[in-house]
Amino acid sequence: MDIHDLTRSLHEKNDSKIVMLVADGLGGLPITPGGKTELETANTPNLDALAVEGIQGGSIPVLPGISPGSGPGHLGLFGYDPLKYVIGRGALEATGIGFELQQNDVAVRGNYCTLDERGNISDRRAGRIPTEESAPLAEKLREVKIPGAEVFVEPVKEHRFVAVFRGEGLGDRVEDTDPQRSGVPPQAPQPLDDASHKTADVARQFIEQSFQILRGQPKANGLTLRGFAARPNLPSYEEVYGLRAAAIAVYPMYKGLARLVGMSILGKPATLDEEIGLLEQHWKDYDFFFLHFKYTDSTGEDGAFDAKVKKIEEFDAAIPRVRQLQPTVLIVTGDHSTPSYLRSHSWHPVPTLLASDCCRPDPCRQFSESESTRGGLGQFEAKHLMTLALANARRLGKYGA
Amino acid sequence: MDIHDLTRSLHEKNDSKIVMLVADGLGGLPITPGGKTELETANTPNLDALAVEGIQGGSIPVLPGISPGSGPGHLGLFGYDPLKYVIGRGALEATGIGFELQQNDVAVRGNYCTLDERGNISDRRAGRIPTEESAPLAEKLREVKIPGAEVFVEPVKEHRFVAVFRGEGLGDRVEDTDPQRSGVPPQAPQPLDDASHKTADVARQFIEQSFQILRGQPKANGLTLRGFAARPNLPSYEEVYGLRAAAIAVYPMYKGLARLVGMSILGKPATLDEEIGLLEQHWKDYDFFFLHFKYTDSTGEDGAFDAKVKKIEEFDAAIPRVRQLQPTVLIVTGDHSTPSYLRSHSWHPVPTLLASDCCRPDPCRQFSESESTRGGLGQFEAKHLMTLALANARRLGKYGA
Repeated sequence: MDIHDLTRSLHEKNDSKIVMLVADGLGGLPITPGGKTELETANTPNLDALAVEGIQGGSIPVLPGISPGSGPGHLGLFGYDPLKYVIGRGALEATGIGFELQQNDVAVRGNYCTLDERGNISDRRAGRIPTEESAPLAEKLREVKIPGAEVFVEPVKEHRFVAVFRGEGLGDRVEDTDPQRSGVPPQAPQPLDDASHKTADVARQFIEQSFQILRGQPKANGLTLRGFAARPNLPSYEEVYGLRAAAIAVYPMYKGLARLVGMSILGKPATLDEEIGLLEQHWKDYDFFFLHFKYTDSTGEDGAFDAKVKKIEEFDAAIPRVRQLQPTVLIVTGDHSTPSYLRSHSWHPVPTLLASDCCRPDPCRQFSESESTRGGLGQFEAKHLMTLALANARRLGKYGA
Repeated sequence: MDIHDLTRSLHEKNDSKIVMLVADGLGGLPITPGGKTELETANTPNLDALAVEGIQGGSIPVLPGISPGSGPGHLGLFGYDPLKYVIGRGALEATGIGFELQQNDVAVRGNYCTLDERGNISDRRAGRIPTEESAPLAEKLREVKIPGAEVFVEPVKEHRFVAVFRGEGLGDRVEDTDPQRSGVPPQAPQPLDDASHKTADVARQFIEQSFQILRGQPKANGLTLRGFAARPNLPSYEEVYGLRAAAIAVYPMYKGLARLVGMSILGKPATLDEEIGLLEQHWKDYDFFFLHFKYTDSTGEDGAFDAKVKKIEEFDAAIPRVRQLQPTVLIVTGDHSTPSYLRSHSWHPVPTLLASDCCRPDPCRQFSESESTRGGLGQFEAKHLMTLALANARRLGKYGA
């Protein structure tokens, strides 16, 4: 039985407000033996005060030892089992650049490559051409016309782009055309099931016309396609939780992920300050707010311990404005850890705080990795966090008599 | 794989004795910020001494955030996955009043209702007539005679009763007859699968004859039926654990739940004192004893913090007599939390203690919600508790060579 089979039948309506603050990549590691993590180093009076009132624990994004990307990391926090709901590479890439996928779309990640005179790949990444050079190519590729399908091409960074094919009867089970090595030509797109024959044919036409358009380019005179994927079919927050939900985020990836579960996207904030402003402005309109803070992750990925500490302090300083709204349930968490020591996403449990009038406070006195090991939430898989949020908001009825 | 697939093949016999003391609704919440829970407020020298010797943790009845009814709460403690084994409403209602369901029974919950002169429901609960008035109606309804099926009617509180149909070929997939609103007539019982045609027909005859019998009643001149359910098919303690098990409880619901997993029901105790007396008296006859204490739940449901504290102290005072019997494994737990602050069952983990000579004691010095967060059992789903009990009793062999 899926968690949503439970929440779907148990959820109830009331006037409560749930706020989930996600500091991306929040969890960290010490950089010296016996040292403190970024969160433990940061001066966080507001989060610590919340830790005294609330309950703390460690959120395991997927399973112990598994480091998630942004997709599974956020799906888990949203209560969608990240092992059950998989967002294909093409769909995630499209989501990440803010492309609004529709039900009859198939998205695919494209890489420009360099072909030699015999049509073999000599460089799988076209010399990692800079974005200034690759972006105009995406515009040229929009000239491709295919009967029975609309084609969208969007630039991504460097040698990357996204193509979206829109039309009836487009399955997404098509093999990658990237042979994963040079010295051979790109592969033809092969359908992996009956429903994907038309997609493979559309992709073949797209490649043929693109090669004509790119002919003569010094580096990017070819392309490969990877990760054909339809829009993932996720049940909505309204259906599984009975929540009118809104997302507040600066970056397109997080807006896109929130849109996939039916959240409304609020405004176009550029700073944390503007994000909180939107929260205040729309406070009456929604039951649930997801607010995303990016920079705890990006500083971690840069290996910039001190910068991550500063970003955590900036995040902490925003807490009082959120608390002034008096949310029924306030959650502070991350979608995964990004220790600057590792310069990457990691598997470590994410310190997670939940405050409500009935959360059963624990002995924790600070918000930190070490304190969270003795917190009342214990260690839990992220996918259970939304159920706990609903319970604390008294939005779940009793299971069984 | 189900836990029972493991225990079934691994269980071994010996002379050990396992006692599970269930203080219903044991877990609680503080009623003032920074305050103590009921259990933390209570003076519990005997439970605290056991906490020093034993190992402690937090039992999650179903899943994080899910508040269970008594059925799933106890099934979990008995080691039966409460999401896999579901007891239908009618079966639970019959169990709750002590009706011994048999394999070819279908039970259903009945509500008396008031019908207007056109046969439409004007009051779905017949004005919540008092039990003194409704109980004699159940006796009248026993006059119903249906060819091919035996009919039992038992009074419950106020406007409620239970009907049980006994006979060959009675499936339990029949739609409720309660339209869930007034101004319309009760619905006819519709079978939802082929195996339930006869049940729907029996129910139809029951309703027709009942309406004749109730005609002329001022309020309860009609009825609706909800939650058709057969006896749930639960494997027995003897089969899955190799345990001769006995249950000691004051209230019929808990005797009934224990009966469903094949426990013998001991005596008719009216007090905790009498319950412990039965435990002593039958000590040699069983391997496992489930002893149920109700009042920690009922005081919680009443929102009576101080009364719940007193009941916990009463429960604590009974511990020495149990320990004198020298059980191999002694467990103290609850089927769920019932914080007086919430006046209802809740999702919070239940403080749980296990004492045996090989339980690996932890640093806990008191039996309490806060201490249990640093206990050696961690947080665990209730369904794992029986496996731990068997292991500590050396009743489980090694899995794999």
